[in-house]
Amino acid sequence: MALLIKGATLLSGKKSDILIEGNIITKIAPSISASADKIDAKGKLAIPGFVNSHMHAGMTLLRGICEDRKLSDWLSHVWKAEGKMAEKQIGAGSALSCLEMIKSGTTCFSDMYFHMDGVASAVEKSGMRAVLGYGMIDGGNRKGTRESADEKKMEKELTIGERFVKDWHGKADGRITCSIAPHALYTCSAPLLERSAALSEKYKIPLHIHLSETRREVFDCLSENGKRPAYHLDSLGILSPRTVAAHCVWLTKEEVRLLASRGVSSSLCPVSNMKLASGGVAPMPEMLGFRMNVSLGTDGAASNNSLSMLETMKFCSLLQKNARWDATVGKEEEVFSAATAGGAKAYGLNCGELAEGKLADIALIGMRSANMSPRHDLLSNLVFSAHEGNVADCIIGGRLVMENRRVLSMDEEKVIEEAQKAAEKLY
Amino acid sequence: MALLIKGATLLSGKKSDILIEGNIITKIAPSISASADKIDAKGKLAIPGFVNSHMHAGMTLLRGICEDRKLSDWLSHVWKAEGKMAEKQIGAGSALSCLEMIKSGTTCFSDMYFHMDGVASAVEKSGMRAVLGYGMIDGGNRKGTRESADEKKMEKELTIGERFVKDWHGKADGRITCSIAPHALYTCSAPLLERSAALSEKYKIPLHIHLSETRREVFDCLSENGKRPAYHLDSLGILSPRTVAAHCVWLTKEEVRLLASRGVSSSLCPVSNMKLASGGVAPMPEMLGFRMNVSLGTDGAASNNSLSMLETMKFCSLLQKNARWDATVGKEEEVFSAATAGGAKAYGLNCGELAEGKLADIALIGMRSANMSPRHDLLSNLVFSAHEGNVADCIIGGRLVMENRRVLSMDEEKVIEEAQKAAEKLY
Repeated sequence: MALLIKGATLLSGKKSDILIEGNIITKIAPSISASADKIDAKGKLAIPGFVNSHMHAGMTLLRGICEDRKLSDWLSHVWKAEGKMAEKQIGAGSALSCLEMIKSGTTCFSDMYFHMDGVASAVEKSGMRAVLGYGMIDGGNRKGTRESADEKKMEKELTIGERFVKDWHGKADGRITCSIAPHALYTCSAPLLERSAALSEKYKIPLHIHLSETRREVFDCLSENGKRPAYHLDSLGILSPRTVAAHCVWLTKEEVRLLASRGVSSSLCPVSNMKLASGGVAPMPEMLGFRMNVSLGTDGAASNNSLSMLETMKFCSLLQKNARWDATVGKEEEVFSAATAGGAKAYGLNCGELAEGKLADIALIGMRSANMSPRHDLLSNLVFSAHEGNVADCIIGGRLVMENRRVLSMDEEKVIEEAQKAAEKLY
Repeated sequence: MALLIKGATLLSGKKSDILIEGNIITKIAPSISASADKIDAKGKLAIPGFVNSHMHAGMTLLRGICEDRKLSDWLSHVWKAEGKMAEKQIGAGSALSCLEMIKSGTTCFSDMYFHMDGVASAVEKSGMRAVLGYGMIDGGNRKGTRESADEKKMEKELTIGERFVKDWHGKADGRITCSIAPHALYTCSAPLLERSAALSEKYKIPLHIHLSETRREVFDCLSENGKRPAYHLDSLGILSPRTVAAHCVWLTKEEVRLLASRGVSSSLCPVSNMKLASGGVAPMPEMLGFRMNVSLGTDGAASNNSLSMLETMKFCSLLQKNARWDATVGKEEEVFSAATAGGAKAYGLNCGELAEGKLADIALIGMRSANMSPRHDLLSNLVFSAHEGNVADCIIGGRLVMENRRVLSMDEEKVIEEAQKAAEKLY
């Protein structure tokens, strides 16, 4: 089955047709004739779909559950609700997330959470592309040692994590990639982290971890290990080109240099960091300076409370400018690249770019609305002015999943209703 | 003509009918029967329309004209383009702004710019409510004195400013309120500022001014006047309950105390401040602590680049949390109040609240979309999750100006096309 996008506008301003054969973009040219289903893209901007490189899809059920409270209060609300979530709830929340992501032009996301079979099933049905890992937690080291405080728990977590990889890696027509996802250095013991690195190496799959999100994490790591977080992870052999480190807001310049030298990718989550008042701001200019790959994530909807990568690009750019008192950082092309190609590179995926030979993960953005006018700079309009409602069509792996804002791959009303019901039972 | 909104959900979660007679909300009750045009608001949240308390409508033509450059570069691009703008262009840009604002649930805005007849005409046609003032600039004081550096210019500016008030105050069925708008302390001489205060007093109308937007403004004011900006304005008698001070990002706590004691309202513009890397963050917690009235503005689209007050509420809240390392500041109810009742109070308008006896300026927000689900906390969904596309209907002064996202008071395609044409001639 072939798909032909007619008359799309590219970010360069040029008009172009785009031919998709199977799940691949095979030709981009001013005028293509082919026997294919056609999509009229007149007045629409064609971009690679967004890659949301750090989020927790099931958490969308907790959107708005606890606002304007300090982190400890927020966590206790979230944990209490999470305690009531089983695979069914996680599935309902993940379906809701997939729906919201498709509607906002996101074609791929990376998730670390629990009851991941529920997430994978939702991804399979939704038509999305995803990198999924079971978030492993064993409670950290035994006091004063580097052994797991709860060895049984560690073994159980590793078993679930590896079982999930075996069950789902490469599934859903290749749309699902599995990752190894030790939660963070403060929730995982040294052996759990080391064995995570070994599993990532064994299966040649990404390793997804939270890093340097709060001052407390840095302080505790310094006290317990005598090293800042990036150095500690390095000593456990966990840093490699397969590693994606989420948040990275309290890194020193030397930590950035180390991560870059190991080929680690960062996933910045500016909205979540601001909302939870994490305080730190990811050193994006230094990351780019050391040629570290930078990607963008929304984090879970409980701490955002949106899954729109359009919004996250704007927050990322403006937070950088604000933090540095420098309007020249967080440039539109940098945040757009992080939101697309950066995420794809982080997870080793062949998407995130609108180019021949790439996976056909594409969003078409309506340009003929008040907020997208006038058209002096299409990329500026996309990064700083667009909202979810401007996203018209969405194609994932060559399949049209949204057409003129109508989602074809999911039953919108049913997904919303089931999520609402599941959410109401969490109190 | 009466209008009856049936079955709307209020922020309290209660379902209610809302009766509008003329331009006033006359009854809010669970079930109202009346001979009136009916609006079905099932599944929609009814809120007061947003009041955008600081912006420059004509500037929307410059959206995206200069990105990611330092302030001096940005200003030189903007000034160059502004030099080519006459009443026709300002009118086209203002119509585009009105369209974007209606589509994002804003029912009233305050503008300070030039060729204000173009703005007023656009407002009149669009159906919006607005506070409009001609932005007066005479180049400041003569060096070493407190006299106008260009007395002729000063007289000319005052004449234009007062003429505009005489022509437009109370026009468009009372939807237009005029203001006196001396641009800022660094662009206006002491006598111009004093005479602005006198005009505001003479006509009993708002005085709208930029205040403490950049470090340079504070530094220069200290060097030239030996006082920080708020104290300087106070010495010129310009601070009163009619004064609205935009930006306020480099105020000390004592300046906030002074402004509050004079009854001045602030208009915070967090998105613009972040984008232009102004560096400072408006001391909102201190403002609220001193019971100063706080309102929200988008500033012009050239430095935002959106006119969505939904987005501005989220930025305001998250910037406060980020700047203070405190998730309990910038609460959802504080930013919502600033975006509605705060703006109305700043300009002495009877809107900004959904209550009997108030002007019928109302937005209906669709709640049945993925990004607005689940519904744990309706205000959180509105402040942190909603985007322009969720705004379904808009009523201004009892008139339905948008119905299910179709604007009834303007020809959308024509407005967008005319703005695009006008914008292309600015290079």
